[in-house]
Amino acid sequence: MVRRSWLLLLCLFALPSMAADPAAKAAPVTVSSPDGSLQVSLTTDNDGRPAYAVQRRGKPLIDDSRLGFILLDAPKFERNMRLGKPSTRKVDEKWEQPWGERRFVRNHYNELRVTLSETIAPKRSFDVVFRVYDDGLGFRYEFPQQAALPEVRISQELTEFNLASDGSAWWIPAEQWNRAEYLYQHTPVQQVGDAQTPITFKLDDGTHLSLHEAALVDYAGMNLTRIEDRRFRALLTPGIGDGKVIRQAPFNTPWRTLMVADDAAGLANSSLILNLNEPNALGDVSWVKPMKYVGVWWEMHLDQKTWASGPRHGATNENVMKHIDFAAANGFDGVLVEGWNVGWDGDWFGNGEDFSFTESYPDFDLEKLSAYAISKGVRLIGHHETSGNAAHYETQLEAALDLYQRVGVTSVKTGYVADAGQAKVRGLDGQVHYAWHEGQDMARHHLKVVTEAAKRHIAINAHEPIKDTGLRRTYPNWIAREGARGMEYSAWGQPGNPPEHEANLVFTRLLAGPMDYTPGIFGMKTRSPTGVASTWAKQLALYVVIYSPLQMAADLLENYEANPAPFQFIKDVPVDWEQSRVLAGEVGEYASIARKDRNSDDWYLGAISNQQARTLQVPLSFLDPDRRYIAQIYQDGANAHWQTAPQDIQIETREAAVLHDQTLSLHMAAGGGTAVRFIAQ
Amino acid sequence: MVRRSWLLLLCLFALPSMAADPAAKAAPVTVSSPDGSLQVSLTTDNDGRPAYAVQRRGKPLIDDSRLGFILLDAPKFERNMRLGKPSTRKVDEKWEQPWGERRFVRNHYNELRVTLSETIAPKRSFDVVFRVYDDGLGFRYEFPQQAALPEVRISQELTEFNLASDGSAWWIPAEQWNRAEYLYQHTPVQQVGDAQTPITFKLDDGTHLSLHEAALVDYAGMNLTRIEDRRFRALLTPGIGDGKVIRQAPFNTPWRTLMVADDAAGLANSSLILNLNEPNALGDVSWVKPMKYVGVWWEMHLDQKTWASGPRHGATNENVMKHIDFAAANGFDGVLVEGWNVGWDGDWFGNGEDFSFTESYPDFDLEKLSAYAISKGVRLIGHHETSGNAAHYETQLEAALDLYQRVGVTSVKTGYVADAGQAKVRGLDGQVHYAWHEGQDMARHHLKVVTEAAKRHIAINAHEPIKDTGLRRTYPNWIAREGARGMEYSAWGQPGNPPEHEANLVFTRLLAGPMDYTPGIFGMKTRSPTGVASTWAKQLALYVVIYSPLQMAADLLENYEANPAPFQFIKDVPVDWEQSRVLAGEVGEYASIARKDRNSDDWYLGAISNQQARTLQVPLSFLDPDRRYIAQIYQDGANAHWQTAPQDIQIETREAAVLHDQTLSLHMAAGGGTAVRFIAQ
Repeated sequence: MVRRSWLLLLCLFALPSMAADPAAKAAPVTVSSPDGSLQVSLTTDNDGRPAYAVQRRGKPLIDDSRLGFILLDAPKFERNMRLGKPSTRKVDEKWEQPWGERRFVRNHYNELRVTLSETIAPKRSFDVVFRVYDDGLGFRYEFPQQAALPEVRISQELTEFNLASDGSAWWIPAEQWNRAEYLYQHTPVQQVGDAQTPITFKLDDGTHLSLHEAALVDYAGMNLTRIEDRRFRALLTPGIGDGKVIRQAPFNTPWRTLMVADDAAGLANSSLILNLNEPNALGDVSWVKPMKYVGVWWEMHLDQKTWASGPRHGATNENVMKHIDFAAANGFDGVLVEGWNVGWDGDWFGNGEDFSFTESYPDFDLEKLSAYAISKGVRLIGHHETSGNAAHYETQLEAALDLYQRVGVTSVKTGYVADAGQAKVRGLDGQVHYAWHEGQDMARHHLKVVTEAAKRHIAINAHEPIKDTGLRRTYPNWIAREGARGMEYSAWGQPGNPPEHEANLVFTRLLAGPMDYTPGIFGMKTRSPTGVASTWAKQLALYVVIYSPLQMAADLLENYEANPAPFQFIKDVPVDWEQSRVLAGEVGEYASIARKDRNSDDWYLGAISNQQARTLQVPLSFLDPDRRYIAQIYQDGANAHWQTAPQDIQIETREAAVLHDQTLSLHMAAGGGTAVRFIAQ
Repeated sequence: MVRRSWLLLLCLFALPSMAADPAAKAAPVTVSSPDGSLQVSLTTDNDGRPAYAVQRRGKPLIDDSRLGFILLDAPKFERNMRLGKPSTRKVDEKWEQPWGERRFVRNHYNELRVTLSETIAPKRSFDVVFRVYDDGLGFRYEFPQQAALPEVRISQELTEFNLASDGSAWWIPAEQWNRAEYLYQHTPVQQVGDAQTPITFKLDDGTHLSLHEAALVDYAGMNLTRIEDRRFRALLTPGIGDGKVIRQAPFNTPWRTLMVADDAAGLANSSLILNLNEPNALGDVSWVKPMKYVGVWWEMHLDQKTWASGPRHGATNENVMKHIDFAAANGFDGVLVEGWNVGWDGDWFGNGEDFSFTESYPDFDLEKLSAYAISKGVRLIGHHETSGNAAHYETQLEAALDLYQRVGVTSVKTGYVADAGQAKVRGLDGQVHYAWHEGQDMARHHLKVVTEAAKRHIAINAHEPIKDTGLRRTYPNWIAREGARGMEYSAWGQPGNPPEHEANLVFTRLLAGPMDYTPGIFGMKTRSPTGVASTWAKQLALYVVIYSPLQMAADLLENYEANPAPFQFIKDVPVDWEQSRVLAGEVGEYASIARKDRNSDDWYLGAISNQQARTLQVPLSFLDPDRRYIAQIYQDGANAHWQTAPQDIQIETREAAVLHDQTLSLHMAAGGGTAVRFIAQ
């Protein structure tokens, strides 16, 4: 046979014919983070294939990792490339979140931009842009307008993440593209299969690493496939036909992100994902309100009520008014109602064609109920379950949102459950196609819903969503989403969520952004054999531990009415924060987090454990040294255990004192937790 | 959120609406191999997802492994399925190969056929057919003609192979789809990345397993991706656009194959791949001749000559006539000439547009040389290098083959080197598309070349080919191919082929079929830093160890002229066999193989080692107990070592004796081997 690749390298002088102007290995171009701890280098190999590598404090973190693309029906775009002249930029700015886990965010990075051009025909090019922070980095491809590549049809993105050392990983599988609701697996790096992002690694030297993406706009969601040993490659979610991504140049890919820290807490304190998103594009968003809510929901999951019509219909005027009254009486801002609209009686699961988003069941009077709620200072929270049929939803989207706007509903929970089938979406060709939750067309769909809602001053809380990539910065009405196993799995899951679940979420899924987890359950016996695998104190702690600007008090109202003492914390806890500090944690084991209320000087502390009982020593140095605080402590009782005595909670109020220099000793039971309110005096 | 999948399972009685007629877990359907050692069971889970499992001697070999498809722009086709009534069939037949490693092949299996039908709309179905042998099994999907699925566009084949126990694997990566020429990796099962087939496993209990496919016709080549732990899933090679496979029903997929044996030798003795192919479709194929050949080839790889025209052009009348004379004088049947045709002077590498397959360089007279060769009892071997541009080749294919037929060339080596770019192929839409070596369109292309060649009584030896899946049974003019790192890597590779390479090939690549490896090098110093990492005796042994009906004496003619004693074995060794027996071996370590000449009663033995010197005790019980044999033994000398003394060979002829009851003690040096001819008296 004839094999020329080696010949090219070995005897350029000797062979009369070869690829013109072969690229030679380039000298590395480098950029460091502001404090110098992270260094990125970009180079090309002898075949002109670009690769980047990352060092942290002089030690390899990411070994040479390739960049490039396989395009559909075009020459692959990954070699014979030459690095152009690098340009760099330093940015250090502070910006304010309209709502969030912290009011002010520092955006401090060094940027490197390099154009990579093919040395041979068709002589295409893209830019690679790195933004290097002290706590991680992002990089993206920018495709300029160019005659040789007017339309970019991406069949495979070749971006690699080649870990330089061994370790373990927490991950959920990227299987068949239609759900995120898996239990987290913890395996050695070499046993990671196709995985969704964010994925979290703990390397052998203790370094923690999270791979994810930021600003997923009009592009396919990225999963990771381990192609050998510790080398991962981007695995784009399939599209609806030709190519996984089809874009007209110019355009940018999402940012490929790498967060890094000495410990798990460091990861969870990062604002990297937000920083890599574009600033607020909506202008004044004071109409977006963080809120706590109750709803007609858990009783369906317990099978006491039904979404469908009939004698056990949940969304009746009577039941909803009861919830409105309860919300008003207890200071909640919203009432979610599921099952209010026509379409739940047919074969909706995996279908979604029958849903009307404007027609109520006869026993639900939207207009009247919404007016009643508003009269009591409460808002109904709208609900649009699509069963993944985004195409059908879009046919009614504007009318549906118009209706809610007219009656004063200011936030909507959307749903895309498609376990039984596939999503459906209307492509740019105007036709309805089967699709996957994180394909490019679904990315467009979600943003269409969010921007249509914004026009009407409505916030969106998407369930079974496309993954969070920090777009809440650009579209602050995209207020929360699900995107992992929520509390409902503890209602009927086989198994339910295990005690470690939330300690996994904090350091995996929640690195992407807020999650509407719906905690606050006191009725631990459910249809799941494991029930709610948590103590009551842990349920309270979740309101602090799991950041979301929407927090549900998810249990049946009677369980709150019967237990006013622990319920008090749910009533007190804010949903909008001035500051947040993840104090300590280990992935899947425990986490302790302090947050300062945005509307007072109070601080809140949440700590959770997995199935292990443990005692945490929590220095209270986050408190103001010049202030005295009353501490209201909700912690596991002496006999508390998620299996045997979840309700054993000890509630204590300590006298006002300066606490800044003190250390709080927190005992957490198996499956337990602690919630503390520090009331500033 | 609303999550109904669990609800469906937990409370069918309670929910008013759900998917109609949900499939229930089916009782397993089973089939066993003729001797009962292998048992396959097929079932569906609670969601109606089909899965198969395999036991060997009562012990799990393959745990539940899913079946099904993701289709493009159609509901996925993998659940809500019901098993139909199984039908079974027993076959025990013997068939004859026109040429091969053994004349007669026994085809002995039990077959199970089950129709799997969707219980809900769109109510599609496919059959799954298992053929279970004592040494492995094959299964395939058969898509019937059906209104609900007239055209099948496969986006992903979900077929899994879930190994039931730990072990290690020998594999090459499935990276970017355009080459097979990698060094084999040997890793724990959990460290296998995306891999090509065949892939070989040695499980912890010593069981050897090979996963591959048979009868790859009009379908995408299958690679494997490890989705978790020991669970592999089919990873089809991308196509040219929509879907990886597009077929009109009815059609069958290739067979997914699993060969199993107690040891490595057992795998290599299997005829499973051939048995799963259709019988000879070409009728009388007596015109297909196994042959040994020399050629204008190695001198180019050593950079002494060039493919391109100019002062060092290899394919000159003079040089070719020298080779013809040498072939005739030494009993070779063919002379390969590369670089004879116009197109090598331009930028052909990764391009291929400039090749003419009918126009010779002026210093090469095809007609005259072929006539001269025939007059001396030799045939020129044609050469069609396409640089992967199958589309361009097809525009000249018929004229090119007509030309060869007219001048009496009866075999053609094709080449598809595409390392620098991608293959190009003409799709069914009539347009030229970028493609991958093992995509569906390339599968069609290769078969088009083979069938067009067959019409002209020309045999095809494809290099950088689509992988071998046993189609030589159906198309016996598809006589050999490459499809792994060949000898040329030892001419210029960085590194060259290591001493273990051939001991890997025997138990991996060669399980698929014959390989034109081109052994027989005596000049060990090359442009590769490692040179030819072999002793002379091993070079001779390769003619027996690596089965191919085409065997090249690849070295420069002067090296043979200067070393007539070892060259004698190359002159003597046959290329067509009555029987073959792999006697012993370990993957990547050693192999010993005995073969009986098809045209005499002589036996040949080849044994090779990796970098370890070793002594093998070889019982000669394969020889006829009633015959006396003269043994001509070519073995490593006392000082032989691939690095320091590759030429140290000891050639010995033993007096005629009955050898059947004897054991031959074979010393093999580091990188060494032994070749023996047993001449029947």
